[in-house]
Amino acid sequence: MPAPLDFYFDTASFYRYFASMKIEALAAKCGRTVNWRAFPLGAAYKADQELEPLTLPMKGVYIERSARFYGIAYRYPSRFPISGVVPERAFYWTHDRDPAPAKKLAQAHYHAYFVLDRDISQQDVTADVTATLGVKRDEALAALNDVAVKTRFREEVDTAIKRGVFGSPYVMVDGEPFWGVDRFDQIERWLAHGPF
Amino acid sequence: MPAPLDFYFDTASFYRYFASMKIEALAAKCGRTVNWRAFPLGAAYKADQELEPLTLPMKGVYIERSARFYGIAYRYPSRFPISGVVPERAFYWTHDRDPAPAKKLAQAHYHAYFVLDRDISQQDVTADVTATLGVKRDEALAALNDVAVKTRFREEVDTAIKRGVFGSPYVMVDGEPFWGVDRFDQIERWLAHGPF
Repeated sequence: MPAPLDFYFDTASFYRYFASMKIEALAAKCGRTVNWRAFPLGAAYKADQELEPLTLPMKGVYIERSARFYGIAYRYPSRFPISGVVPERAFYWTHDRDPAPAKKLAQAHYHAYFVLDRDISQQDVTADVTATLGVKRDEALAALNDVAVKTRFREEVDTAIKRGVFGSPYVMVDGEPFWGVDRFDQIERWLAHGPF
Repeated sequence: MPAPLDFYFDTASFYRYFASMKIEALAAKCGRTVNWRAFPLGAAYKADQELEPLTLPMKGVYIERSARFYGIAYRYPSRFPISGVVPERAFYWTHDRDPAPAKKLAQAHYHAYFVLDRDISQQDVTADVTATLGVKRDEALAALNDVAVKTRFREEVDTAIKRGVFGSPYVMVDGEPFWGVDRFDQIERWLAHGPF
């Protein structure tokens, strides 16, 4: 008989409740049993100030495993976290001229940061990445310091806030919000079979 | 042609990167296109102190939709958040006598809070719930105030922290951690096909 799964739950929270309703069926389907363990997350954080540094390496490994699950190239960047404001200004500057290369630029920035380990918060790096799409590098650098480009970006953020965007990644499907890569299965069902 | 999906992304983060690698295929599968929108979440929170109250009602609706997606009975409790410490002490007190009813007790507490809207942070309510499992109500109430029961619970929390539990719900599968109901698809693949 294989070992039981250890299921740590916190009684007074939504998603833990949802998990509690699914864990037994999941385990049974895979020929396992479940060992339930109450675990008050808030109390744990309060009790042990050492928790954060202790768990950070585990979170790193954890993210790498998710990347493998999704089948995506990834390595933990040597500088993390960084600001995304510079590449996002470049995104809208490109977008206002043509949306198609803007999407490619966003993808190229992710690749530069999470695969090639380049610090895309730096204007020089963003200008390099933008130049790979056939834009003149000097023109891109100038745009990043253009007040009109900065204002344009700020307006986009304000518009998103007014629409009620409260997370990221965040997908609006016919006005219906979905937050997180983990909810893509919900989007698929919504699009295929309508509202639930 | 149906409307495009609006994809809000934040450049310098893991899960948004993963989402960016999946969104186009998902949209294409469902006959949609994608409208990419850069959205720096941190900047948005800093810029607008009104964001939190504005988004809370949307989060409430959002959680209800997730409950429907999972096919789980749920309503937003009239008192939220509350502490789970009292029902979790009852859990371990029951567990040390017999693990099987302890699991039933945890499920009964979730049901009392998220379906019947009872405030399970109160000893009286937890004693009521525990009594439904055939335990004498007075005995349960006395246990909740027993120093040995409190110490036992504290030791469980310490053990979980030492094991590196950093979230909730949290599942250990042969020593491999999985955090969140959204990762249940990962657990299933792990159990069926081994490590990835």
